[in-house]
Amino acid sequence: MPDGELSRAAAVSGFPEWLPQERLVEQRWIDTIRRGFERYGYAPIETAAVETLDALTSKGETSKEVYTLHRLQADAKDTSDAKLGLHFDLTVPFARYAAQHFNDLDFPFKRYQIQKVWRGERPQEGRYREFVQCDIDVINPEQVPLHFDAEVARVAIELLTELGIGAFTMRLNNRKVLEGFYAGLGASDPLAVMRAMDKLDKIGADAVGALLRDELGLTGEQAQSCLDLAQVRGSDGSVAELVRKLGVTSELLEEGLAELAYVLDALAGLPEGTVVADLSIARGLDYYTGTVYETTLDEFPGFGSVCSGGRYQDLAGQFIRRSLPGVGISIGLTRIFAKLLAEGRIPVGAKTPTQVLVVVPGEDTLALAGEVGRALRARGVNTEVYHAADKIGKQLRYASRKAIPAVWFPPFRDGADHEVKDMASGEQAAADPATWTPVSE
Amino acid sequence: MPDGELSRAAAVSGFPEWLPQERLVEQRWIDTIRRGFERYGYAPIETAAVETLDALTSKGETSKEVYTLHRLQADAKDTSDAKLGLHFDLTVPFARYAAQHFNDLDFPFKRYQIQKVWRGERPQEGRYREFVQCDIDVINPEQVPLHFDAEVARVAIELLTELGIGAFTMRLNNRKVLEGFYAGLGASDPLAVMRAMDKLDKIGADAVGALLRDELGLTGEQAQSCLDLAQVRGSDGSVAELVRKLGVTSELLEEGLAELAYVLDALAGLPEGTVVADLSIARGLDYYTGTVYETTLDEFPGFGSVCSGGRYQDLAGQFIRRSLPGVGISIGLTRIFAKLLAEGRIPVGAKTPTQVLVVVPGEDTLALAGEVGRALRARGVNTEVYHAADKIGKQLRYASRKAIPAVWFPPFRDGADHEVKDMASGEQAAADPATWTPVSE
Repeated sequence: MPDGELSRAAAVSGFPEWLPQERLVEQRWIDTIRRGFERYGYAPIETAAVETLDALTSKGETSKEVYTLHRLQADAKDTSDAKLGLHFDLTVPFARYAAQHFNDLDFPFKRYQIQKVWRGERPQEGRYREFVQCDIDVINPEQVPLHFDAEVARVAIELLTELGIGAFTMRLNNRKVLEGFYAGLGASDPLAVMRAMDKLDKIGADAVGALLRDELGLTGEQAQSCLDLAQVRGSDGSVAELVRKLGVTSELLEEGLAELAYVLDALAGLPEGTVVADLSIARGLDYYTGTVYETTLDEFPGFGSVCSGGRYQDLAGQFIRRSLPGVGISIGLTRIFAKLLAEGRIPVGAKTPTQVLVVVPGEDTLALAGEVGRALRARGVNTEVYHAADKIGKQLRYASRKAIPAVWFPPFRDGADHEVKDMASGEQAAADPATWTPVSE
Repeated sequence: MPDGELSRAAAVSGFPEWLPQERLVEQRWIDTIRRGFERYGYAPIETAAVETLDALTSKGETSKEVYTLHRLQADAKDTSDAKLGLHFDLTVPFARYAAQHFNDLDFPFKRYQIQKVWRGERPQEGRYREFVQCDIDVINPEQVPLHFDAEVARVAIELLTELGIGAFTMRLNNRKVLEGFYAGLGASDPLAVMRAMDKLDKIGADAVGALLRDELGLTGEQAQSCLDLAQVRGSDGSVAELVRKLGVTSELLEEGLAELAYVLDALAGLPEGTVVADLSIARGLDYYTGTVYETTLDEFPGFGSVCSGGRYQDLAGQFIRRSLPGVGISIGLTRIFAKLLAEGRIPVGAKTPTQVLVVVPGEDTLALAGEVGRALRARGVNTEVYHAADKIGKQLRYASRKAIPAVWFPPFRDGADHEVKDMASGEQAAADPATWTPVSE
């Protein structure tokens, strides 16, 4: 930075921001995701960034990540703002919204929500304090057809493919299979077994086996069965047979296997390897009750899940005395975008949406240049008219610096043609403001 | 609400939220605004919701409206989050961003920014604690061509027209005219006179006159001249003559009149009455230095300005040792949308983006219905496939409740046609999934 230009401005750590050329790509991503959600009939909602602290902490676990709000010069007598915080996900706000507007919504209610969320975490790679989540959920009083467990996965897979994020794998499981298996095996506390099994990635099979035996009272054989279940993989309904071969039976297990098989079969026809059943997946602890999803980038397996979700029995029990089961999935837009940008996998191009720059060779062409601009814009062409009659070289350098793909030359004398220069090829040809269209990217 | 359904959920006062059918319209508005900004080559940026408190309060005046952030369970030793707050406009964040990325931006830098902002104000009609602003600005080191003073106004007027918000009037003035006039008149503190004149709307001409005489030491004649200036209106460059007739001269006044005339002439051709010069407009106190804009809805003049802005000499002096003058305008999206919605002026239609619902007459048509859905979506048609084989009447009621405009009937036997029912007219006709397109709204 040249002398005398020292900037005292800095972004706050953990709050990612992009240059215009990057934001243009992020916006295209968001447009793609939104179009994909709408293609399947998901309706948009947007909730306030702020919820009451009661609402935010009603599920308990994540309270330490909440940013609370205070008015800088709040009146001591005024405590009305004392209990507000920023939402840390889109699930709690959706639950509050669904409860609040229950009588105004039509069910099954399919909603999408693309918004920023905030968490007061220590920033580190792939973890942000502010990031965009893209969620879809289907909720319905009493029960939600299994149809939607396959649909939300299909929507997410289509979109991750369309975004061109590289190869990825969505892993499916069903919590009923896990709970039913552990119960069928004779475990007295199947949920505790699930919590232990969820540590497999972190502490390894030997340590988990010891945990199951020493702390949860399983026999060596029972513990081994749990570890065997976690090894099962499959890509279609036949995975149920692999589980059954482990010799454990229970009603819940059968119910889970039927659901898992249904979802896998409904997703048949997707590219090989995109979806696999992975019986080691549990996705957190208490919330999910059936199908669960997680998705990793094949090239960056250690980066963690970039698209997760599942089926739940009760969305909004803390807000409303109605059973609102549902199923949903969430695309971690900022995590994926920031990672691929940092890895140089996202081609970044123009610094402006401008498709053509109309140059102004002299004061006498100012009005004509303005007319050309209006004619092109009226047909939806993103058009800048250079802001002054200036040297043509300077105007071309402006287009070049911003990577504007075309430059328009109004006729330099009566009767001459309008001409357009393609900045990539350097070719220049006659053109008509009433018909010219930009070359699409 | 029926017994047993009592909801404990409530939105927080001052944080507006919409039902899906309303959000669909708000999204179309945002799309329209964004397309309009891009049509003129404004590049998108998005800044973090959070700035340091130093940055937010660097201009002083509005500090009491700031929401500060605290981590709910912050470690006493950890003070890193102690000084963060939510942005209360998009100007301070843009200034910080421009300073921070000065060497990565290409000038003149034309940016747009459509984001929520937060203010810890008492909620009242037309005042929200969370609302969406849509800003464009052009900045350039040292000087910004007057061309852009007209451009940003034109962009805003085009968009307000395209949104269909009803008749509106944009009022223009130039701060140099005011300062130059008061100085030419002999006022010792022209800015103090401007502050007094800015109260005209609130306290009336008599009280302002008294203020000018008693507190600012103007003679009765000088005070009357100030009040006369505030009466001047015009719709083109000839307004400068009306001001000159008041018999006051100064260099700054002439400079301001030339600028005002330039901008008005550059905006010629817009519908009659859309733009007027109004010499009573001052727009706040210290920030603006040239052209100023404000816009009111003709039908709700007391509602205040819905689109304002102006030219400034120095965007980011608190962050960078570079002069960054600019000109910008801001559309108050939430204020306009909420007002017109409350007044019943916004037609609200479908509760979903779905353009057609494919019904499923029986289990044997499930697979075929899924294929129809995929074929339609592949061509960009927003399509829901009903989630179960159910009574047709129930499926039609679902379409009807969500105001889905068309229903698709897969062939009920081999060789029969696909048929589509138009839900508005009730007409039903044969259709082909490979070619059918929905009736546009």
